[in-house]
Amino acid sequence: MDFTRTRSLFHLPEGMIYLDGSSLGPLPLAARERTLRLLSDEWGEMLIRGWNDAGWMDAPARLGDRIGRLIGAPAGTVVMGDTLSIKVYQAVAAALEMRPERRVILSDHGNFPSDLYMVDGLLRSLFRGHELRLVAPEEVASALDEHVAVLMLTEVDYRTGRKHDMAPLTEAAHAAGALTVWDLAHSAGALPIDLSGAGADFAVGCTYKFLNAGPGAPAFIYVAPEHIGHVRPALSGWLGHEAPFAFDLDYRSGPGIERMRVGTPPIIAFAALEAALDVWDEVSISDVRVRSIELAELFIAEVEKRCPALELVSPRSAENRGSQVSFRFEHAYPAMQALIDRGVIGDFRAPDVMRFGITPLYLDAGDLVRAAETLEEIVNGRLWDRPRYRERRAVT
Amino acid sequence: MDFTRTRSLFHLPEGMIYLDGSSLGPLPLAARERTLRLLSDEWGEMLIRGWNDAGWMDAPARLGDRIGRLIGAPAGTVVMGDTLSIKVYQAVAAALEMRPERRVILSDHGNFPSDLYMVDGLLRSLFRGHELRLVAPEEVASALDEHVAVLMLTEVDYRTGRKHDMAPLTEAAHAAGALTVWDLAHSAGALPIDLSGAGADFAVGCTYKFLNAGPGAPAFIYVAPEHIGHVRPALSGWLGHEAPFAFDLDYRSGPGIERMRVGTPPIIAFAALEAALDVWDEVSISDVRVRSIELAELFIAEVEKRCPALELVSPRSAENRGSQVSFRFEHAYPAMQALIDRGVIGDFRAPDVMRFGITPLYLDAGDLVRAAETLEEIVNGRLWDRPRYRERRAVT
Repeated sequence: MDFTRTRSLFHLPEGMIYLDGSSLGPLPLAARERTLRLLSDEWGEMLIRGWNDAGWMDAPARLGDRIGRLIGAPAGTVVMGDTLSIKVYQAVAAALEMRPERRVILSDHGNFPSDLYMVDGLLRSLFRGHELRLVAPEEVASALDEHVAVLMLTEVDYRTGRKHDMAPLTEAAHAAGALTVWDLAHSAGALPIDLSGAGADFAVGCTYKFLNAGPGAPAFIYVAPEHIGHVRPALSGWLGHEAPFAFDLDYRSGPGIERMRVGTPPIIAFAALEAALDVWDEVSISDVRVRSIELAELFIAEVEKRCPALELVSPRSAENRGSQVSFRFEHAYPAMQALIDRGVIGDFRAPDVMRFGITPLYLDAGDLVRAAETLEEIVNGRLWDRPRYRERRAVT
Repeated sequence: MDFTRTRSLFHLPEGMIYLDGSSLGPLPLAARERTLRLLSDEWGEMLIRGWNDAGWMDAPARLGDRIGRLIGAPAGTVVMGDTLSIKVYQAVAAALEMRPERRVILSDHGNFPSDLYMVDGLLRSLFRGHELRLVAPEEVASALDEHVAVLMLTEVDYRTGRKHDMAPLTEAAHAAGALTVWDLAHSAGALPIDLSGAGADFAVGCTYKFLNAGPGAPAFIYVAPEHIGHVRPALSGWLGHEAPFAFDLDYRSGPGIERMRVGTPPIIAFAALEAALDVWDEVSISDVRVRSIELAELFIAEVEKRCPALELVSPRSAENRGSQVSFRFEHAYPAMQALIDRGVIGDFRAPDVMRFGITPLYLDAGDLVRAAETLEEIVNGRLWDRPRYRERRAVT
């Protein structure tokens, strides 16, 4: 597989080595034309008729099916909309309703905080008396017991890149009588996922990281085919209604995955998402995974050879790691600022982690060697030790 | 006030008379360039740094303040994000928590169904044992009693254009010990609103109707200054956290209106919203209201003169009406399709209503006379009585 073709589909600023696709992927060049066409030819010319004539109304399911192909989800099980936090809320609320006799949501300390916050909100209100139990990632399987209603995990840890093994954990959860909610924020577009094969019950994810759909791009939710017919949406908006345009006063959920829709879908953002998904017509997720592992191994070797002060916090074994590599360094924050100043973009995660997202879609071996060389200059030359690198504010 | 200037700020297809700004406003011409700049210069060049350097992270509050100026809300009381349905959920959940001893949400039959559905979801889960009480619009004031926790109303009825009187109803609600949630979907950008002056507690609205920010544009929420410090968000996402980038495992809500934020904000959609709000730098909402009443009166007079079969269902008195005019007609659906075929765009609302949104931002007296003439041809010539006009699907 030759990735020079996919690299040509993205805009990357001159001289920049972008290792932050784990936060926000770069601009697919076609997103400009596609968005302009949406604005001028669809919104501009069709106006309200765009909902039918340009297919806006069906876009959440149509785009969901395209995402589905990347995550092992059959047609009709994925729908787009809202933010990842809202989708977590929907998935966990629906799963808890399916296990009314149980009181525990099990997760791990490495889960993304917003997922935990959304559950915290659920427990303070909708599910009073329930408990969010957090254990270490390696203790998840043994913490499953007859009280656990829902096992909620992010497959790839946002900070360390540690990857949970979805199939056996899902099987263990089911054996304990629990349902699973998988957050694929750092997995979708980074590695092959087989929701169907793993028997996952619910999954959610965002599209602005390794799927490259732009800042604040819409989220997705997956509900397993065996559940979708009897899931009761907690956020029961009109576009999840069986007949939104009947304007009935009473809510009746739609027949399938569309019941997880809430309000009017974000059509302008969908244009960029469509362009971002077109990239996947050119490349297979398996090839991306194979090559991203090669690139990550190269980067780890180069950094460890050059910067002894940095400690790898990602799993050393590629099969236990997602598509990012993280190092611990006492001066991680100013060192990352110094690196960014030199055109190598990674990010900082509190308290002391330097994180690098790696994907062959727009990165090659030369980029990763140059990134390691720049890191070497900064760390070994103490170039991070300047006031201006300490002042900035960190942002995802 | 001369509206030829604002008309030049919008794209309208050649020969089209667009009377559907009550569903989806037309494209502000500057939205194209602004969105392209966001894609190319911000996302494309800044990538992850756009969150700080392009001000993306603060955009929800910055744009909220701009909306605030149109709805009588002081700076720091409005924030953007999500869909209107999600914002309704947040507002009603927060208000119910502030009246724990009361069990009734009062609304009217004319309220937009999605608002009712979201409350239905709340009552099935978060607030079991509560009741959604629906009365006729004119009975709202007399239905307020000591059991009502929240009065939730859409100021302007989506179907008839009937306008509630916000200040006295809010006062009556407060006198009864209840809080108010106002949905401004059909008010914002259509008429002057004074949330502060009326003493409203919560308000929500969308930006794709009379604010012209595009299909699926983000919603807003207002929380009165006296409440914002102790509102507990039911949807407790990371961007409403006091310190989102500390990545704490526990949720602590932010100090002000930002606590009503949930997930990552829709930055691409914000670009079109910014361009749409720039239009309001050229024009005052009071002038818009005065002229839209003149245009609506003209349209009513022309239609009633020409089409005796149509019955006005909007209030006859302009002060009780929003910025739309609706007529009942037995053959409303096919007649609207025939009208649309002739380039006059309004919309159909089940079962028998033809709805016309009216705003001087891009419509003039000539447009409204021509629209009435076309309607006359269709109704009096029975041009609606063709199979192809009966087949189509209605969409908002």
